[in-house]
This record gives sequence, C-alpha cells and structure tokens, in this order.
Amino acid sequence: MALLDMLRSPLAFLESRLPTIPHLPVLRAEQEWWKTDGVRISDAIDRAGTPWLRMFDPSGRRTDEILYPPEYQTMLRQGYRSGVVWRALEENSLLPTYLLMYLVSFYDPGVCCPYTVSLGTAVSLAKYGGVESQARFLPPLLRKDNSVWQGATWMTEIGGGSDLGASVRTIARPSSDSWLLTGDKYFASNATAELAVVAARPEGAPPGVRGLALFLVPRYRDDGSLNRFIRRLKDKIGTRSVPTGEIELRDSEAYLLGRADSGIYLILEVLNLSRVANSVASVALAQRALADALAYAECRTAFGKRIIDHALLRHQFEVRLESLRSAFALAWESVRLLDEVGMERPPYSERYHVFRLVAHLAKYWTAEFAVSSAKWAMEVHGGLGVLGEYEAERWLREAMILAIWEGTSHRQILDGLEVMERKQAHKTLFAQLAGIARTEELQELESDVQRLLNLRPDHKEAEAEAVFRRLAILSGDHLSRKYLQ
Amino acid sequence: MALLDMLRSPLAFLESRLPTIPHLPVLRAEQEWWKTDGVRISDAIDRAGTPWLRMFDPSGRRTDEILYPPEYQTMLRQGYRSGVVWRALEENSLLPTYLLMYLVSFYDPGVCCPYTVSLGTAVSLAKYGGVESQARFLPPLLRKDNSVWQGATWMTEIGGGSDLGASVRTIARPSSDSWLLTGDKYFASNATAELAVVAARPEGAPPGVRGLALFLVPRYRDDGSLNRFIRRLKDKIGTRSVPTGEIELRDSEAYLLGRADSGIYLILEVLNLSRVANSVASVALAQRALADALAYAECRTAFGKRIIDHALLRHQFEVRLESLRSAFALAWESVRLLDEVGMERPPYSERYHVFRLVAHLAKYWTAEFAVSSAKWAMEVHGGLGVLGEYEAERWLREAMILAIWEGTSHRQILDGLEVMERKQAHKTLFAQLAGIARTEELQELESDVQRLLNLRPDHKEAEAEAVFRRLAILSGDHLSRKYLQ
Amino acid sequence: MALLDMLRSPLAFLESRLPTIPHLPVLRAEQEWWKTDGVRISDAIDRAGTPWLRMFDPSGRRTDEILYPPEYQTMLRQGYRSGVVWRALEENSLLPTYLLMYLVSFYDPGVCCPYTVSLGTAVSLAKYGGVESQARFLPPLLRKDNSVWQGATWMTEIGGGSDLGASVRTIARPSSDSWLLTGDKYFASNATAELAVVAARPEGAPPGVRGLALFLVPRYRDDGSLNRFIRRLKDKIGTRSVPTGEIELRDSEAYLLGRADSGIYLILEVLNLSRVANSVASVALAQRALADALAYAECRTAFGKRIIDHALLRHQFEVRLESLRSAFALAWESVRLLDEVGMERPPYSERYHVFRLVAHLAKYWTAEFAVSSAKWAMEVHGGLGVLGEYEAERWLREAMILAIWEGTSHRQILDGLEVMERKQAHKTLFAQLAGIARTEELQELESDVQRLLNLRPDHKEAEAEAVFRRLAILSGDHLSRKYLQ
Amino acid sequence: MALLDMLRSPLAFLESRLPTIPHLPVLRAEQEWWKTDGVRISDAIDRAGTPWLRMFDPSGRRTDEILYPPEYQTMLRQGYRSGVVWRALEENSLLPTYLLMYLVSFYDPGVCCPYTVSLGTAVSLAKYGGVESQARFLPPLLRKDNSVWQGATWMTEIGGGSDLGASVRTIARPSSDSWLLTGDKYFASNATAELAVVAARPEGAPPGVRGLALFLVPRYRDDGSLNRFIRRLKDKIGTRSVPTGEIELRDSEAYLLGRADSGIYLILEVLNLSRVANSVASVALAQRALADALAYAECRTAFGKRIIDHALLRHQFEVRLESLRSAFALAWESVRLLDEVGMERPPYSERYHVFRLVAHLAKYWTAEFAVSSAKWAMEVHGGLGVLGEYEAERWLREAMILAIWEGTSHRQILDGLEVMERKQAHKTLFAQLAGIARTEELQELESDVQRLLNLRPDHKEAEAEAVFRRLAILSGDHLSRKYLQ
Repeated sequence: MALLDMLRSPLAFLESRLPTIPHLPVLRAEQEWWKTDGVRISDAIDRAGTPWLRMFDPSGRRTDEILYPPEYQTMLRQGYRSGVVWRALEENSLLPTYLLMYLVSFYDPGVCCPYTVSLGTAVSLAKYGGVESQARFLPPLLRKDNSVWQGATWMTEIGGGSDLGASVRTIARPSSDSWLLTGDKYFASNATAELAVVAARPEGAPPGVRGLALFLVPRYRDDGSLNRFIRRLKDKIGTRSVPTGEIELRDSEAYLLGRADSGIYLILEVLNLSRVANSVASVALAQRALADALAYAECRTAFGKRIIDHALLRHQFEVRLESLRSAFALAWESVRLLDEVGMERPPYSERYHVFRLVAHLAKYWTAEFAVSSAKWAMEVHGGLGVLGEYEAERWLREAMILAIWEGTSHRQILDGLEVMERKQAHKTLFAQLAGIARTEELQELESDVQRLLNLRPDHKEAEAEAVFRRLAILSGDHLSRKYLQ
Repeated sequence: MALLDMLRSPLAFLESRLPTIPHLPVLRAEQEWWKTDGVRISDAIDRAGTPWLRMFDPSGRRTDEILYPPEYQTMLRQGYRSGVVWRALEENSLLPTYLLMYLVSFYDPGVCCPYTVSLGTAVSLAKYGGVESQARFLPPLLRKDNSVWQGATWMTEIGGGSDLGASVRTIARPSSDSWLLTGDKYFASNATAELAVVAARPEGAPPGVRGLALFLVPRYRDDGSLNRFIRRLKDKIGTRSVPTGEIELRDSEAYLLGRADSGIYLILEVLNLSRVANSVASVALAQRALADALAYAECRTAFGKRIIDHALLRHQFEVRLESLRSAFALAWESVRLLDEVGMERPPYSERYHVFRLVAHLAKYWTAEFAVSSAKWAMEVHGGLGVLGEYEAERWLREAMILAIWEGTSHRQILDGLEVMERKQAHKTLFAQLAGIARTEELQELESDVQRLLNLRPDHKEAEAEAVFRRLAILSGDHLSRKYLQ
Repeated sequence: MALLDMLRSPLAFLESRLPTIPHLPVLRAEQEWWKTDGVRISDAIDRAGTPWLRMFDPSGRRTDEILYPPEYQTMLRQGYRSGVVWRALEENSLLPTYLLMYLVSFYDPGVCCPYTVSLGTAVSLAKYGGVESQARFLPPLLRKDNSVWQGATWMTEIGGGSDLGASVRTIARPSSDSWLLTGDKYFASNATAELAVVAARPEGAPPGVRGLALFLVPRYRDDGSLNRFIRRLKDKIGTRSVPTGEIELRDSEAYLLGRADSGIYLILEVLNLSRVANSVASVALAQRALADALAYAECRTAFGKRIIDHALLRHQFEVRLESLRSAFALAWESVRLLDEVGMERPPYSERYHVFRLVAHLAKYWTAEFAVSSAKWAMEVHGGLGVLGEYEAERWLREAMILAIWEGTSHRQILDGLEVMERKQAHKTLFAQLAGIARTEELQELESDVQRLLNLRPDHKEAEAEAVFRRLAILSGDHLSRKYLQ
Repeated sequence: MALLDMLRSPLAFLESRLPTIPHLPVLRAEQEWWKTDGVRISDAIDRAGTPWLRMFDPSGRRTDEILYPPEYQTMLRQGYRSGVVWRALEENSLLPTYLLMYLVSFYDPGVCCPYTVSLGTAVSLAKYGGVESQARFLPPLLRKDNSVWQGATWMTEIGGGSDLGASVRTIARPSSDSWLLTGDKYFASNATAELAVVAARPEGAPPGVRGLALFLVPRYRDDGSLNRFIRRLKDKIGTRSVPTGEIELRDSEAYLLGRADSGIYLILEVLNLSRVANSVASVALAQRALADALAYAECRTAFGKRIIDHALLRHQFEVRLESLRSAFALAWESVRLLDEVGMERPPYSERYHVFRLVAHLAKYWTAEFAVSSAKWAMEVHGGLGVLGEYEAERWLREAMILAIWEGTSHRQILDGLEVMERKQAHKTLFAQLAGIARTEELQELESDVQRLLNLRPDHKEAEAEAVFRRLAILSGDHLSRKYLQ
C-alpha cells in the first residue's frame, strides 16, 4: 500500500499498528461511510459555523432547539449505530469504542465529543447509578438505532474548569424522591443531550472537592417541560460538530450517582474516559494533517520537482511520521490500561495509578503533536493554508481545542507530577518500558524524574514540563516499538 | 514600571531594548491613538471578517470597491500620516518606519501589511524608477495627509509564491511609451492600492528568474478607467485589515522599473523589506500574546492563588519573556543591517549577504516564536481561549499568516543555507557574535554549520532545520545581550 | 432645486412642507454629518448584522457588553448631542425632536429607536417620577455630551405585545425603599440602556391591564453589579442599529412611576410617543426609497432613454410623490397634536382622543406606505434590487419592522375603531378636515364610518380596514393641502 | 379536510382546484419527501446564505466548484428524478412539470429555478437544436437518475435584462464546426449547469434584437477544461437554493440553436416557460404564506381567543384565500395555454398571443399577490415575523425575487399592452371570459381597455397599470369560477 493511501485511511493506519482489530467489518463500513458521505457533511457543518439556537417555538413555549442542518443528525447517529457507546457496555470492552473514535476523529474530531460524553454518561450510570435510574435511563442510552439518547458531562462553571472544588457552585437540594439542582454550567458540550451527568454541591456539603456530588439530569422533567435551559451556544473556533453551550439549571430534577460525599472520584473517572478519547482523537487528527500535507506535497511542484521530493520537506515529513507512530502508541497504551482498570472503584490499584500517569502523558503529548502537525500541514500548503475555503486551516482550529478542553498541558503536567509523587506511578512505568528496551536514555530520564521529584515544590513545578515532555516522548517511542513486535 | 504595564506597551518594550529611539513623541502619539481608538476599531474589523467586494456601481460601471467600515480608513491612514512610509524616504532611514511597524503590529499585525507593501513600492520607485515615473508617482506615495496613495507588491501567481521563475506567467508587451501586462496575480495584498509593483515576463524573455522584470501598475488607466480588476477577495483566517485579492491584469498599463533583464534582483529587494517587516511584526505580536496572557493570569485564580503565581505557568512565562527579548534582538539586527545596505545594488557587498542571512534567520524564528506564543496564550486562557468573542484566538490566526506569507520556514531555511554556502555569510555573522560574547556553545554551533555545509545536497537540506534553528536562537540570545549593553 | 436634490435631502423636503422650522442650523449640521459620515457608518452597521453579545468579561464577571464597532457610538451619540431628547424637555416642545427624527430616519430608521425610547423614558420620568427619581435620573438622561444616558421602554413578554393585560407576568415586589422586579422581557429594544421603563404587575394586583404598573429599572444596582441581564440579542432582519434583546429581570431594583394601579395609562402614553416616532420614521424611509429609486432611474437607460423617462415608471413615481406628501401631512398632524396634548393626564380631553385617532391612522398608513415604496424602489432597481451589496433591499427590511413594532396594522385599526366608537373622535376629525376642504368624498366617507360603527361587533371589525384605510388616505390628502397653504 | 390541513398541502390545494391530476402517486411521493426531509434541508440551505465558490482546486486548476452542503444535491436531484424535466419531453405535456413545480415551490421557490431553466434548455434544444447537438446533449438532460445534467438560460448582461437588444454584447465568432463566445453574463442562474442556453450577437450581426442569436454552451470544453467561468456568486436576499453568478465566456465553445437571425424568438420562448413557472411558484408561495399564517393564528391567543378568531384577521384571511384561488386560476390558465401553443414557431397563431397576454397578466399579478401575502403573514406573526430564526420573513425575501426576475411588473404591463395593441389578444380573452360569466364589470373593463389603447403613447403607458391590474384580477376571478365547475 502506498504511504499516502495508508495515511489517508485511519483504518489502514490502525491495522499497521495493532496486531488484532476487533469488528473489522464494522470499522470498514464506518470508514466507507465517512469517505463517501461523512467528509462532505463534516466540511459543510464546519463551514456553517456555530448553529443558531431557537429558544422558543412560535407559540412561545421554551424548547431550546439547535438549528443544525438535518445531515448533521445523519453524521452524528452514524457512530452511535456502529456501536461507539453500546458496544462498550454490551461487549464489556472499551477497545471497539476507541477504535471507532480514532476512525471518526480522523474525519471530524468534533463529533467524537458527543460520543465521549455519552460514553461517560453511560459508564457512570452503569457503575454508580441506582436501580431505578439504570432501569429508566440505560436502555435508551444503549439503543442501536437513531432513537438512541445522548449523554453529556457538565462540570465546569464560570470560575473555571481546573479547580472544581472552588468553582462548582451549583447547589443540589434534596427533593421527595430526587434532587433539585440550581446553578449555571459554563462549558456544556452536547447541550441538547437527553441525559447529562452534572457536578453539584449538595446543600450543607463541605467546601472544596470533598463537597462535590455527581447527578444525572434528564433534558425533560417528568411533566414533559424542559428541565434545564441553554442560555446560548458558544462560538468556538472549532469542533463545530458538537454544540457547546451555557446551561442554566433551575430546580432541575436530578438523580444522585454513587454517594453524595464521593462525587470527586466519579468526576475524575468521567474525565479519564474523556482524556483517553482526546488522546486518540489527537493522534487521528495528526494523521489527517499529515495525510493532507502529503497529498498536497505530492501534487504540487516547485523548482522542477514535487515539493515532497525536496529533501527538507521530506525529512520533516518522515520525522513526523515516526512521531505519529509514537504518539499513537502512547495514546493506545492509555486505552489498553483504561480497558483494564476502568471498572475499579476507590481505593484504586497500583495499575490504576500507572494508567493515570500514562493518560496524563498521552493527553498532554498527543495534543501538542496534533497542534504542531496541523501547523506544519498549513505551512506545507503555503498560501492556501490560510484560506477558509480549503481545509488545511481547519485542522489547526480543531487541534487547538483538543489541546485545551479536558485540561490544558498545565493540568496534565501537574496532575501527572502528583501521581508520580504520591503513588510512585513512574516506577511501574519505567519498569514496563525497560521490559521493552533497556536504554541509557531511559535510565538517564529515570534519574531526572527522581531528581525532579526531590526538588522543593515551587522548583518542582517550574522544572516539570521539560521532564514530563521527555517522559511522554520516550514512552511513546518505546511503546511504539512494542506495538511493532 | 510593573512588568504587565511594560508588556502592554510596545513603546515601553522598545524603550527597554533600544538605547535611543528617534521621534519618540510621534511614537507616543501613535500608541496613544491605538490605545484609545485603534484597539476597538481593529477588533471590529477582525470580527467583521472578509469585507465585501462591490465590483460594479449601480450604473453598471466596474469599480471594484471594497466595502470596509469607514473607520477602517481612519485606522489605516493613521500610520501613513505618522510617517511609516514618507519618513523612510524623507529621512533616509528605515528606523522610524520599523519602529512604527513594531508599534502598530502589537495592535494589529494585518494593518502593517499595507504599510510594508507601500514602502516596497516607494523604495523600488525611488531606487529604480525612471524620471517620469518618479515625478508622477513618488509625490502621491509620500503625502503626509489622508490623500496619500498606497502601494502594493504583487508577485505570486496560481503556481505558487516560492518558485517565481516557473510560476510567473504574466506577460508584458511593450506599448508606445509604456508596457501592457496581461495575467492573473493570485495573492495580491492591498488589492485597491493606487500603485502596484508587479512581476511579469516581457514577451520573448528567457524562462526562469532571468526572464522576470518588475513594473509599476497604477490602479487607473490614463483615461480614468480601471487598469486592473479584483477578481475576488480571499477569505483569510487573519490579517483582515489588509484586503488580499486575486487580480486580473488585462493589457494593463505598466511602467518598467530598472532593466528588463534584472527584475529578479528588484523583486528580492522588495522581499527583503517585507521579511524584515514580518520579523518586526512577529515579535510585536508575540509581545501582545504574552501581555494578554499575563493580564489574564494576573486576574484569574485557581487553587487559591492567581494562576500567574503557579510555578509552572510563571516559569513558562519567564522563559518566554527571555525569548521575546532574543527574538526582538534578532529582528532588530535585520532592521539595522537593512538600514545600512538597503540602497545597494548588484553586485552586493559582503555586508549585504550577512543581512540576507540574518533576515532569513529572523523571518523564520520570529514567526515560529509568534505562533508558539499565541498558542501558549490561548492555553493560558483555558476555555476562553477558543471562543471567538474573546481575543486570545485571534493572535494565533494572525501569527499563522505571519509564518506563511513572505515565505514559509522552508523558504527561509533553504535561502539561508544558500547565502551561507555561496557567500559564506555565516562566517561574518559568527565573527560578529563572537565580538559580543565568545562561548563554547557558539564554537560548537560554528562547527556544526560547517559540517552541515559539507554534506551532500540532499542530506544538507534534510539536516538544515535543526542547525538553522539553533543559529537563530543563539544569534538572538547573543544579540539580545548586545542590545542590553 | 431639482426634484432629485430635494428628495435626497430630508431637510429640503421638510422645508418644502412646513412653513417654519425651528433650529434650522442644528438640522443642517445634523444632515451634513449624515451625508459625510453617517451614511457610510450606517451601511457598515447594517451589513455587519446582529452584533455579538459578550456576557462575561475574561475574569468571569457578567457584563453583557454588546460588541458594536466603535463608530456605532459615534453615530448614536450624534443625535443625542443635537438634542433629540434634551430639547424636548428643555424647550418644552416635541417639534425639534420629531424634526430630528425625520432627518435621522431618512438615513437610518433603526437608530431612531434608541432616541424614541430614551424620549419615552425621559418624558415618563419627568411626568410621573418621584422627586428622588427625578433628581437622580433626569440629569444624566438630558446631558448634552457623549456621556448622556439612554432610556428604554420594555413592555412585551413572550405571550405577545398586543394584549399586555394577559401577557405581562413580570412581578414587582415592594422592597424597603424601592421594588424588586422578576420576569422576562421578550422584545427589549436598546438592551444596554442605562435606564429602562418596565411594565410589571405588583404582587397581589388584579389581573388584566388594571393590574399593571410602570417602573424605572437602572442598568446597574446600587452596588454596581448588573441589575438586569441580556439573555440574547435577536437576529432581526432590519433596524440593526438598535440592539433588541431578551431581558431577564431577577429581583431587579426598580422605582415606581405614577400610581401602582394606573400603569396602563402611563404605558399607553409611552406608546403614543413611539407611534408618532414610527410614523415620522416611516415617511422619512419612504422618502429615502423614492430618492434612491429616482437616482437610479435617472442614471439607468433602457430602450434608448433613461428609465425615469418611460411613462409608466414616471407616472408611478409621481403618484408616489403625491402620496409621500399626504403621508407626511398625516404623520406631522400626529406630531402637532401630540405636542399639544402630551402633558395631559387622565381623564383626557376630547383633543387627546382626536390625537389618538390620528396617531393610529398615521402609524397604520405611513408604515404601509413605507413598505410599498420600498418594494417599489427594489423593483425599479431590477436585479440589483435583490442583491445584498446594494442598498435597495435594505429599505424593505427596515420598513417591514416599522410596520410591525409599535403594533401591527391590526392593532392600529382596532384601537382606532375603539376611539371612534367610545370617544367619537372621528367627528372632531371630520370637522377639522371639512375646515380644510369640504368635499363630497369626505361626506361619503363620514357616512361610511358611521355605518361601520353601527354594525354588530364582528362585522364591524371585519369591515373596518377598508374604511380605516380610506380615512387615513383622505385625511392625509386634506392635511397635505393644509400644509401647503 | 380542515382548512389548515388543505392549506398546508400543496397537493391538496391542487386537488381542490383541478378536476384531474396526472401522476398523482408521483406527486404524493414528492410531497411526502418534502414533508419528511425537504423542509428541513431547505431551511438549512436558506439559513446558510450564499454558498462559497471555490475557484481553484488545491493543485491550482480552475474548477469553479460551489460549496453547497451535500444535502443540497439530495434536494435538487429529487425533482429531476420525479420528472420535472424529462416528463415534459417524454410525455409531450407540460402539465406534470408545472404540477411538480407548484408542489416544490410551496416548500422552496428557489429550487424551482434550476428546474425551470433546465426545462428551457431541454425544450429549446428539442425544438431548435441541430441533429448532432440533440444526439449529444438531450439524453443527459433527460436522465431519470442523479446523473442528470442541468440546464441554464443566460441572457442578461451588466446593461440590464429588459432591453436585450441594447445590452447583449457577448460576441459569437464562427469556428470550424461550432462558435466561440466571448462576453460576460451578469445574472446567470444555476451557474454550474452542465449546459447553458446563451444569448449572443454573431460578429457582424445588426444592432438591436434582430442581431441576437441563441447558443448552447456546455460547461466543459471538448478537451475537458472549463468552457466558462463563474466570476462570483451573487448575494441574493432569497432563492438561495439556486446559485446565481456572474459568468465569463472567453472563446467558449458554443452551438447555434435555430437560425442566427431569429434568436430573439427563441429567447422569448424560453422566457415564456420561465414566466409561467414564476407564476405557478408565486401562487404556491402565497399558499405557503397563508398556511403558515393560519397555523400561527390558530395557536396564538390574544384577548382571550385565538387570533384567527378575531374578526378583522379572519376577514383578511378569507379575502386572501379567495384571491389565492383566483391567482391560481390565472396562473394555471397560462400553463394550460402554454401547453397548447408551446411547440409553435413563428409566425405564431392567435391563440399564442392570448397565451402571451395571460402569461403577462399572471406573472404580474401572482408575484404581486405573493409579495403582499408574505408581508401579511409576517404581520400576523407580529414580532416573530421579523426574526431570522423563524420562517415568516423568508417568504417575503423569496417573493421579492419572484416579483423581479423574469421581468418586473413594468415589463409585464408594457409587453401585455403591446400584445393587446398589436395582436388584439384582449379580444379573444374577453370572449373567453364572457363564456364563463357575462358580467357588467367585465363589459365595463373591456371598454376601459379599449379606451386605454386609444390613448396617445405616453398617456397609454402612464395609465396602463390600473387597467392591467383590474384585468388580471377579474380574469383570475372568472377563471377561478371555471375551475370550480
């Protein structure tokens, strides 16, 4: 298979990296759909910009309808039908889900977000929901046709998304057989989801993260009226295939997930699913950027030869291709580990902490790589790279969102530092990497990590990034070798 | 002066870096205008997106009018009046021009483009124009009021902007007392300029760069009708304060600059002016991104303190601030050198070749730095960074254009390589840097450059980027020290 | 003066219709400003579409800032400075106000709306405000510089604007020294006004219009925070120079105007001011449409002559010109009468009821005329008439809003019917018209009106429009003759 | 069937007016498709505004691709497959075509335009094309699947669309076995059509309409390159489902239709097809506006009852409903007559001239009625009527285009006058109407027409509109009675 053909097919790349791939026919059909229909729908959705929100129907009833073109639904439902959510629960494995996400994200990383938050909702419900909640809400979330419900995971408020302990001010008051939530969510992806998982603070709970609980909030009240309101949709620079809004909860009917005093664990578990999805999507996006750049460089000539045949560009491309494989290995390691530990509950195993470390490394590094690859692909396109009518600039807009949501690099580095410090997760990781190939570089890095952890707090934070980056890259390189075996 | 105050003022930064600054009152007034009026106008122009082109007036006459809001003219004319073009010729120095450009680009790097191409037009005309052309066109280009003419420099055609020898297909046919040009220009900045400098190929000229000549093309024919047509405006992701169009030349009246067989030198001299301007603008944009990030980080809190007081962010910021100073030093060195050699004609001096090398290093590195700083500033803003309604995302859009127009990094690296190889320009540069501070790092780099130049062509190109980047950074660091003295 | 010159100048038209015009130099300066600056600003504002609403500043504080281009403020403040509001109170006459409104509406009927609602706010306050409210709020509303406050008049809720008795659900609860309002306003023009006049229902008040009261609601609370919120701006097809939003009142501090049980009278008085303004604006807009059509028809040729010289078009134009004069006479009669009775309070005089009838006739007929003239002007422009890049289509978009807000034709007809039925206002009107010219047509119409009023209710309503239209037209024709004398 | 149900179904309305309807199952399926899929697609296309034109593919090849969302093609192809074009030629009857057009225009009058111009192309080709042209181009135009070619009819140039004799400046030069056309078309609907019918002036032909010829111009040259260029798409206020552009012909390969000296007849015959289509679309649009207004008026309450139950609104609605029936009768009469005379060639029969008169009356009056109905429906919607997020305002935008393209009211009146004067077409029409019902009104109108025709030219034109309008209305009323029989 020619390199360009491989790069242009997310499935071919997956096949080149993974020894076995479950549900190949499903993935083939999915990719075929994207090539024939999805690509052009996705382009049109991106070009159309932020859709309109029609708050009231003509009779004056509040309805909060988002005016996407109808083909948006076609595109969106495609992945649900293929099993991006229902397979995870039915087959008790996250692998089919993240394989589908890789494939979809190659074509549209934004539409991966609804899938991710629906997954987070379904998994939270399956793991922590009460019997009644499960009976009522799980079946519609797992439907295999277009009537499937969507989920959403709304944590962030105006105060910011990192320090939830301080910024979540949504209050939950117990009601007869449920809870009533009041507050505003500021970045609420998949704003029309039928069921959302929402962080709130039960009345009287202590301040900080210890006082957080997680709730299910359906779109409609039992009486059929809206149970929450979209204040507006946000004009994001990318991922226009997921509607992100500000949500108003006003005595919204809600159902507790798990225990009211341990919501923070549930929140972090939801975030784990998202970060892994973000890593997978970032690598897929980087593959897309490289594929487009290569296609362009193969058809454009300058100074008498195709620009891909100029040594500088060729070299840059080859280095990036190698990095793509490493980035994929790192992301997929986070998938594999999550698949192992995803059903754990606190207190977590040592393996879980390794997963956390790898997930932070992957979220951080794959997003960086996606951004730099999208930037590079724009430059390869020259002047065309900055024109809205061509696609090159889109991937940078998409990549920048992947680098920011689910926690910026700062968050990943600091949280990664913490799990190394408190849980010594790096030791297990280094042991594992050494099993792949024992190198001098690895030993040196291990010393550097140890040295870093011994610094006093401020210095430790200040110096963390360089070490963290090297750890991500080296882990990716080593893991990449493992996948090749 | 508090750091934030300094960063928020391009003039304060200039004052902190340069021992003397000519025309301080002019610059102060310029900055004051931007702070009170310009900032909000520039925001509005960017938000408005690509303006409409009204090709015909209601009576059916072709007019090619661009429908900018009226305040666009206010913003645009401000810089001309302050002297961004006329001072260069009247005072025989480029320093006031580039100082003004730094200042303007801090607020709007796009509007710097009309100034740059007007400068290129005026300088070409002054240097190479015939007596009649000068008499007719120089005075309006140098007016000090709002009636000033604008210039433009149009080289690129659909085949691309790098390999002009192959891609310029516009034909020039001699007419009675002038020339007639026919062809299409694909990226034509400042599309309504009263006078453009245009690359074309005289009928019968040899292929390749040797067959190129440079012409003046006024907007209107002698009979008052349009002398060239705007086919359309391009939807760029940034720099919306300069209208970039596709231009149709159809027997357009034109006047030769210099000799018909040496146009390539004139073209490259025009490009020199632009690349230096691009470097200056890139550094200013990076300053802006850092200023905005710092302002945000000082007012936002997480985990009980301002986010700027978190050690990781603080460290990243400080490293960037140091790089800003280096990048400025590199850019300003290219200004200083251009100011010395700008009136040379072929054959050029050794000093001219050093200028060329520094200009390539500066164009390359300052744009990279602008992009990475804008990306970083977006991340500091978290979720707000990806929303159209705030400014953070704008700087990345602007920076990506700076990285691409006037030649992408590939162009700079390869041309830089050539001037080192053919003219040994690096030797003079190293000598100069050693004069500032003789370091081991410098010596090591000098060997690496030499080793690179000895490689066989393909390897040389492939390996060039890493060496070129280090050369840019180290040069900047050294020069930064020099400016501090 | 050539006809086209007269039509292109709202002031020239006013001078041709009115024997004396106060403050001519002020009006001349105003018109001059519009010709040189305002026209192009207004075009740019219309082209830009609905502006963005930035709800939060970067630090997360709710600010509800509307992102108009800065020149919008220049345009907006121009009229306030000229005295569109302050003169009404200082000079104790509405004539200067409505003259200015005519002039402004010729160029931009949308910007007339902020002036109208600011006038409504100032007049209500001056007439019904408590001593403290007047001392605090009147001076800023009457400032003569750019720091002037704006007013707003918010009545309509989601249930509709006609039947306020049923649809106003905003509740007012008494607080220590003021009131607290909670509810949602659905069409809230001039959404950022510093002071709004708001219809609400005091707790415990009876249902229907008898339970309505009118309140002053400042933009900011005494503690400096926002006192009301803009939920969003509405994407209107026209009048983009006034921001119309949905407003949320949440325990918003408010001050009662007049008595709590007679709000409906105050509301109707505010509406009177608006309807008269709407009539004046409609005529001005019709003049503009005719002026543009004539200008086009004078420069375009078909079949060997200017299209204005084709008899069909010429005839249509002349008929419209005559109607313009009649429509103006009707509108100005409503101004003149309002100027007489505007300070009355209930119980109102017979003269007041004549004013009401004339105001309904004028609001109805001038808007119809504006719409049909704008439609006609589009058709005169042929294909250019439907292109966004030319202005012809704008006037129809503007006119359609004038026909709808302040009550559609249905409202005017039915309310006009009521004031004829209950107050016999038509008798006085007919007497007055007879004083101008006693015609058979007039007598016949008088009989028809009487016959209409004698029908049983359903038939009366059903048949009302034809009679009402004839009454409007005939009144206009007669009054036009009077103005010519 | 409830009135609202009937009004909401174009097919139900057709069934209520016409005794027999061919291909009912086809029409039912078409309507069903529109109700389930088409409505929402059409809304999305309208909301998206003018699509982008991508002139060049990334490799720099000129391609002139219009970036519609993919579902646009779904919507567009639906009608072709149902037979809006192929049935006309295969079944030798225009009735199925215009029935389909009525149905489609109820949902989207814009998409009716591609069908109309494709019909015009196919009919011209079938009637006047050479053997080779027919063999080559007819089959693809008549395909029954999605690969069907589209046609287009391009006459208008920058000088205007009425006086083609003066404004068509496109030159045709004979080539070896075809012609080469050079010129610019200013309003070119269906800009990407595979085959266009184009008016041009053979070199050396006399001035005026006598020098016009009609040509076929394929999209691609024989060598596969573009045969004509889209300079840009026009931002129309409506009918966004047909891309209207400016077209550049540059030595474009072309094939003559009919004789080179009788193009004007062919042009007028094409126009006949369009005007009849425009009439049918206008009535369908009026029905849509009434249906939407009724639906709203049935669900909205004011003053204690549904607003449709208020006598004034109810009365207006009923009058409009009656007019809808008359307007339909007039439009359908033009269809019926065209179906009879459509294959005639000059010299034409008397029946043909009656058709022309009826077609002018219908184009004029149905468009007037569509505009006034759309305006009325907006007013019924009150404030919602002026908001972009609801549909009411769309119908006015669409209607205004129907009133302007294919000739404004002026054109219809003057051309109608001519056919009465020169061909006495009104006499046959009056005779026919008298056959339906002999009324005093009719006799009076006949005298008025005769009186009008006897006036001297200028007076005749000036007075024509009132008589023409009465003739249109009365004809519609009478014909409506006939259809009811």
